[in-house]
Amino acid sequence: MTEHLVVIGGDAAGMSAASQARRRRGTDELRITAFERGNFTSYSACGIPYWVGGEVAERDSLIARTPDQHRANGIDLRLGTEVTEIDRAGKRVRTRELATGVEEWTAYDQLVIGTGAEPIRPALPGFDAPGVHGVQNLAEGAALINSLRDGLRTAVVVGGGYIGVEMAEAMALRGLRVTLVSRPAEPMPTLDPDMGRLVRLGMEKLGIEVLGGAEAVEVLLGADGRPTAVRSTAGEHPADLVVLGLGVRPRTALARAAGLPLGAHGGLLTDRSMRVVGTDDVWAGGDCVEVLNLVSGGHQYVALGTHANKHGLVMGTNLGGGDAIFPGVVGTAVTKVFDLEIARTGLNEREAAAAGLRWKSAVIESTARAGYYPGAELMTVKMLAEEGSGRLLGVQIVGGAGAGKRIDIAAVALTARMTVGQMISLDLAYAPPFSPVWDPVLVAARKVAGRIGQNPS
Amino acid sequence: MTEHLVVIGGDAAGMSAASQARRRRGTDELRITAFERGNFTSYSACGIPYWVGGEVAERDSLIARTPDQHRANGIDLRLGTEVTEIDRAGKRVRTRELATGVEEWTAYDQLVIGTGAEPIRPALPGFDAPGVHGVQNLAEGAALINSLRDGLRTAVVVGGGYIGVEMAEAMALRGLRVTLVSRPAEPMPTLDPDMGRLVRLGMEKLGIEVLGGAEAVEVLLGADGRPTAVRSTAGEHPADLVVLGLGVRPRTALARAAGLPLGAHGGLLTDRSMRVVGTDDVWAGGDCVEVLNLVSGGHQYVALGTHANKHGLVMGTNLGGGDAIFPGVVGTAVTKVFDLEIARTGLNEREAAAAGLRWKSAVIESTARAGYYPGAELMTVKMLAEEGSGRLLGVQIVGGAGAGKRIDIAAVALTARMTVGQMISLDLAYAPPFSPVWDPVLVAARKVAGRIGQNPS
Repeated sequence: MTEHLVVIGGDAAGMSAASQARRRRGTDELRITAFERGNFTSYSACGIPYWVGGEVAERDSLIARTPDQHRANGIDLRLGTEVTEIDRAGKRVRTRELATGVEEWTAYDQLVIGTGAEPIRPALPGFDAPGVHGVQNLAEGAALINSLRDGLRTAVVVGGGYIGVEMAEAMALRGLRVTLVSRPAEPMPTLDPDMGRLVRLGMEKLGIEVLGGAEAVEVLLGADGRPTAVRSTAGEHPADLVVLGLGVRPRTALARAAGLPLGAHGGLLTDRSMRVVGTDDVWAGGDCVEVLNLVSGGHQYVALGTHANKHGLVMGTNLGGGDAIFPGVVGTAVTKVFDLEIARTGLNEREAAAAGLRWKSAVIESTARAGYYPGAELMTVKMLAEEGSGRLLGVQIVGGAGAGKRIDIAAVALTARMTVGQMISLDLAYAPPFSPVWDPVLVAARKVAGRIGQNPS
Repeated sequence: MTEHLVVIGGDAAGMSAASQARRRRGTDELRITAFERGNFTSYSACGIPYWVGGEVAERDSLIARTPDQHRANGIDLRLGTEVTEIDRAGKRVRTRELATGVEEWTAYDQLVIGTGAEPIRPALPGFDAPGVHGVQNLAEGAALINSLRDGLRTAVVVGGGYIGVEMAEAMALRGLRVTLVSRPAEPMPTLDPDMGRLVRLGMEKLGIEVLGGAEAVEVLLGADGRPTAVRSTAGEHPADLVVLGLGVRPRTALARAAGLPLGAHGGLLTDRSMRVVGTDDVWAGGDCVEVLNLVSGGHQYVALGTHANKHGLVMGTNLGGGDAIFPGVVGTAVTKVFDLEIARTGLNEREAAAAGLRWKSAVIESTARAGYYPGAELMTVKMLAEEGSGRLLGVQIVGGAGAGKRIDIAAVALTARMTVGQMISLDLAYAPPFSPVWDPVLVAARKVAGRIGQNPS
């Protein structure tokens, strides 16, 4: 008998799962229906800041796979259709076609939940006015682009995390004078404040005003109902345009109503096969789940397309009869503001303390190429190692071209639970156009190893 | 009593060892004497092609630490002084001052051998003529730069390995028409031929003529005794200038005469503390030793400044009372020709076969950034995995900006003996300016994992 796989959500996790399951099982074995509330599938939300900033010209280039491509692949894709209820006992979902209001029940054998994330929007005066923009999906990105017009001069970006700094860059690229309002004292709070400070200094050098330790409290509106300024705890900041970059949280109201288990961060809890804990027929992945952090051993919430795609691959492999696992994350992330590259992986000091660890840290400055080679940009590396064991706990990098992707060295080392002593001996690629003879990551490993009394090993 | 450490060779391995030993033990505890035949210390031989090519303006910027800096550090450095004999029973070395011919014996308690490498120079007609240049040390680099003058139009580079392709770039940067003569059918024989082919096509696109499967047999000289052409098995190639890039071999005649153990490649054999096998007072590192390859389990010869520096750190730590090891290499290397980046690590197919392994390989093409992000350059990744175990065996990369240093992901994974299934799940840094949502290295891991039936794990 043909099994029926129902997918809720037409973006990375859900459609990767559907595609991978289809690769392993033909239409005679597996029927696949996917419900998507919006009108797009499989697009890169991470690319929206670059589209809004004008570096990516076409919306459609952000779309990895269109609805028609999915349909050609044997997936019955229903756009504009919201799933409003999961009846687990009855193994069915209730859907509503947004255009017509028509409701239906659809039975499933296996269910994939890929409902993604919803942006955090403060319930404060003026934040729902036109001219206050989120950038979480293609429609919001388009609305922001359409609002750009002659005469706009100032933008306030609320939120100093990844989306915040990326949108600050985007607005600056559009020629606006940008103020970034960040609640933490320094932007990029997934870095330690000493490294976040380097980000702030870099952004200020690029002409972006960064207000740390400031909380936005109101969008002031003009007679036309559009923003004129943002009022924060630090003062009033002129704003013809306001962009919200406060991050996202898991969109799990549907799952919660169905009695599925949620974690401390509000995300669905799954096992390593990406099956929802306590079920045998419900799977979940992407921005609506929590993931295991392999360094701390705790669960965390990370909304990132790269994880969503991996979750989808794992779910689809397992739904297709394979045996795949997603072991967890180490907390790697990278972004940039113009030429300033920012990356982190593992635990920062706050996270190491929360995990009850004892550590030492070291900060070094080096160059991304041999110092004598043209274009050798400065980069700062901070590394944390556990006292006693010497285990690598985390790395943060801020620097010029070539700095950011070096975080991958640490990401793999964290996954392998290497010590910083072992890292000193890593056989990393060396040639003057690519690295000093001691790669900056190894210089940091040497320094922190020295602090905890560990030799090259 | 003060111990006496004698160092033979004033470059990376020897002077790193001396400096690190000094860091750990003061002049009251340890006397350090270093003999260097030439007049420079601690310089970057790897930087010479970029100096010759004109990208690095000053010779002195290649010098990491000058003789005076070493002396200020409490190291008795004797330049222009060759060690001509090691008397192991008597624990002393015989030296000859090159300027005066004066010979002396110097007693040691511990001896560090850092005699480096010597270039391979074919004993063929014309190869010792003026206008035929090696580029192994600063004097040779200076000679080549001094020979550049108006009217030079053509250069032949003999040898298609790292130095060969780097010198082809350097000569092209100097405005010469360059022919590269390579004995293997494709250049860069540390890559498999299918990847070497991409290097050749890239170089040809840049206007460099690449003659594969050709052996240089004679340098033809004009009436002035200078080159006019190189004759190879493929024909005659005009050459106002000839550059030798045939690689190097360990400089171990001194060690051999002292009865110290050499390996199959002619390099000194050490244990993991970098102590020469069978001795308790002789240490060796850098371009004169063989190293353990952690992937094949065999010994290999790799002349690279980054290893020499690590060897020096390990020797110096141990000579200073510490307990450090150099576990071995995985065979990582990177270079570039203009914007074409070339990297490899682990075993290629020839090496995997020689190690008696069974493997499958996969080749993928992707981009170094998200495909839609400006400047997303193409890159090709080849990955080898062991059949059965799924262990990663090696990776080769050829591509545009951002391609080369990605090899470090594989270098760390090889060190940790990861499987390609485990690699699929690696939490690598993702953002559109830095990577597609699936990093190209992970795309290769997925493909080769599929070939050997391994799932994400």
